[in-house]
Amino acid sequence: MTDPATEPTTIERDETPGFVLPPLRDENDNLSSDFLDALVAAIDGGDAAAARSLTEDLHEADVGAILEQLDPDQRPALIQLLGDSFDFTALTELDEATRVEILEDLPSETVAEGISELDSDDAVYILEDLDKEDRDEILAQIPSVERLALKRSLDFPEDSAGRRMQTEFIAVAPFWTVGQTIDYMRDAEELPETFHEVFVVDPAFRLLGRVPLDRLLRSRRPVKMSEIVDEDATVVHATDDLSSVARQFQRYNLISAAVVDEADRLVGIMTIDDAVDVIEEEADEDIKRLGGVGDEEVSDRVWSIARSRLPWLCINLGTAILASSVIGLFEQELQKMVALAVLMPIVASQGGNAGTQTMTVAVRALATRELGPHNMSRVVGRELIVGLLNGVFFASIVAAVAIFRFGIVDLGVVIAAAMVVNLVAAALGGILIPLAINKLKFDPAIASGAFVTTVTDLVGFFSFLGFAALWFGFSSG
Amino acid sequence: MTDPATEPTTIERDETPGFVLPPLRDENDNLSSDFLDALVAAIDGGDAAAARSLTEDLHEADVGAILEQLDPDQRPALIQLLGDSFDFTALTELDEATRVEILEDLPSETVAEGISELDSDDAVYILEDLDKEDRDEILAQIPSVERLALKRSLDFPEDSAGRRMQTEFIAVAPFWTVGQTIDYMRDAEELPETFHEVFVVDPAFRLLGRVPLDRLLRSRRPVKMSEIVDEDATVVHATDDLSSVARQFQRYNLISAAVVDEADRLVGIMTIDDAVDVIEEEADEDIKRLGGVGDEEVSDRVWSIARSRLPWLCINLGTAILASSVIGLFEQELQKMVALAVLMPIVASQGGNAGTQTMTVAVRALATRELGPHNMSRVVGRELIVGLLNGVFFASIVAAVAIFRFGIVDLGVVIAAAMVVNLVAAALGGILIPLAINKLKFDPAIASGAFVTTVTDLVGFFSFLGFAALWFGFSSG
Repeated sequence: MTDPATEPTTIERDETPGFVLPPLRDENDNLSSDFLDALVAAIDGGDAAAARSLTEDLHEADVGAILEQLDPDQRPALIQLLGDSFDFTALTELDEATRVEILEDLPSETVAEGISELDSDDAVYILEDLDKEDRDEILAQIPSVERLALKRSLDFPEDSAGRRMQTEFIAVAPFWTVGQTIDYMRDAEELPETFHEVFVVDPAFRLLGRVPLDRLLRSRRPVKMSEIVDEDATVVHATDDLSSVARQFQRYNLISAAVVDEADRLVGIMTIDDAVDVIEEEADEDIKRLGGVGDEEVSDRVWSIARSRLPWLCINLGTAILASSVIGLFEQELQKMVALAVLMPIVASQGGNAGTQTMTVAVRALATRELGPHNMSRVVGRELIVGLLNGVFFASIVAAVAIFRFGIVDLGVVIAAAMVVNLVAAALGGILIPLAINKLKFDPAIASGAFVTTVTDLVGFFSFLGFAALWFGFSSG
Repeated sequence: MTDPATEPTTIERDETPGFVLPPLRDENDNLSSDFLDALVAAIDGGDAAAARSLTEDLHEADVGAILEQLDPDQRPALIQLLGDSFDFTALTELDEATRVEILEDLPSETVAEGISELDSDDAVYILEDLDKEDRDEILAQIPSVERLALKRSLDFPEDSAGRRMQTEFIAVAPFWTVGQTIDYMRDAEELPETFHEVFVVDPAFRLLGRVPLDRLLRSRRPVKMSEIVDEDATVVHATDDLSSVARQFQRYNLISAAVVDEADRLVGIMTIDDAVDVIEEEADEDIKRLGGVGDEEVSDRVWSIARSRLPWLCINLGTAILASSVIGLFEQELQKMVALAVLMPIVASQGGNAGTQTMTVAVRALATRELGPHNMSRVVGRELIVGLLNGVFFASIVAAVAIFRFGIVDLGVVIAAAMVVNLVAAALGGILIPLAINKLKFDPAIASGAFVTTVTDLVGFFSFLGFAALWFGFSSG
């Protein structure tokens, strides 16, 4: 470890004499408090030099993570303090709410200047969240060539490939040779910052195919581009839904894909980093929907959080009152035997959990297309058997608990029967409800939970109290 | 759409006369039943030609998806029917259980032959799930150069970068020129199938940096590699944990990263497609753990599913019995006022949902490192206020419901107080429990759910019945 050549990988920072930079991240990969404290001190003291030396060698993703952790009023303060040395790409790494807040706090000239420096996909990503008025004000201050490209992207529907495509790419004619193409790239002034392929287009700019750089490099100079072009590469339409595009990137291990318009003209490229963000966003959305929260972020404010959680809690309250009214049907029985009130939550709760398990697997399998028409009946049948097996297993346990606790054998019989019924209901509800919601073209993650636990609560209370009413009704009367 | 040049993107298939290929996927992106039926017919009839013409132009990911959908005994049958034209890469697209089953059903020579054709990372991915005996039997039949590379990868710990790295890459000396490097690539016979950069190493094979292909192409032939090498690129250590490597890929938008051993020697590369798989697997794991299921897949068998869901259901049964015993403390009160039994699940259920919401956001924010030491107290404080706000809101609703339903004003007061207490408890439990589990270095996704609903059940029942006992106890006695 003494040879400096063996350590080319550590990020070197210019260290102002007497100013030792604290490490950015701690051992758990969280931003370190030392770093953030130093930066906050620089912001509060208006010390531009210190703020710059702390952030200048950081990746934009880390700058984004830092902005998230600052207080709302410190964020625009830091950006203004950094001035030209702030890379607006960092804003693409923020939660939407945080980004919009920052953009609204900054003067529109600052934003326009910052955005002009960006790749088109990043610029669009930042602009699309703003309301029309703010957006137009910023666009008006951007040079016209770039403005047109941005406007064209913004004209595509939200969550379409056109919105996230990069409009900087290299396209050549099919009769160009490898040598010509390489010479062009050596001489051209304005090339995309990074690229992984050269596209081949006809005179009308219709896409003929792509030549990955490794193929270009392996070919001899006189070879024509038309000879080495890959015509079968995956192509994305600008109006395609981003989530289906991301699924293709993931499924086919793509690095980038050409984006064409309705006339098959090449208009941009989608790259894997955007697809990765979409994949992560979708998984995040699934998790949050299953947990009964919307597109809430940890940076959101109290009011917006409290409000966004209300609908789900209202639905749950409705189903809880429904379940409670089922219990209300059996007031007489409960009066006669208070043990029923003590035991009934066990049946409902166990059903709720089993149903949630089945539903979780079903929702994920639907999202990843592992569950489709072909294996649907097999999966439903399997869940039914699993529900039955688990039902019998837990029926015997709760029966034993009930008999031990209350010394009434009949109570064991009743709770065992209810447990089997409810775990079978949980299995059916857990698989059929997501399938039905999916069939209706809604996202099964968003509503399955409420329906499934409604089913298991209702069936749980009704079967247990109903069996009790029948059994003890007959035996006592 | 009449000019054939405008449609270079559709995959062309050789169509055997009289044999029209059904489309692979339906309009929902699911595998089409027509296609699967045709393939199953070919398998059952032992028709190798039909099976081959159906699958030969498919991407390995689609072949993998097809294998998942087949019955267990049809899978090895298809592979044997396809013979040499089956690309073993497809097996990397399968769930682990399915893959192991297939590998155990195939003769070891077939597996060894298939694996020899693969990139090292794919070969390791397939081999690592097998037990040692099967693995050694297969390795023994693989040519020695490749065997050594595979063994080296397999020596790295599970879930480390060394396991998923590709050992095929291009490395040159720093004094080579751009021209020399390009000429080398034009002449070399054995190059990786695709690559995006050339690495620069010293004589001891220690990594000096990387040259992305676009930079190579933009540089003139006499330029030395040492002049254009990027020394600051992210480097991964072979023993690094895959999930932290994947997080770096995602955070820094990497396409590939060099993997070095403990002596900083270049041993392989990690590519974005592997990182994407890890990201997806982790999100999947989080979702499933939150839903109380293990690493279960939709293709698993009944027994393994029933067994894997048992632990969670057992834990839930334990907590349900605990909650039930809290109810048991108040048998006298329930006897006196059956309305308590009717209403008590509302308080518990509403708390369970609110707690799950808070927990879901906390677990995700911890996983993505958006919640760390710096903003922890802010987030806890915010959750507390949200809990209080929602508590007051729902307290007034349930109070109204209780008074309307039973005509007892005091019951409204009691349930309102219990609701506020339980929603505050839910907020605290929902945020503090994941934080505590995370602090103890466990995955908060796996156990938070059980603890949070235990808290809300216990607090819900205890506060409601306890307040009732106090309130009515005082007023009646």
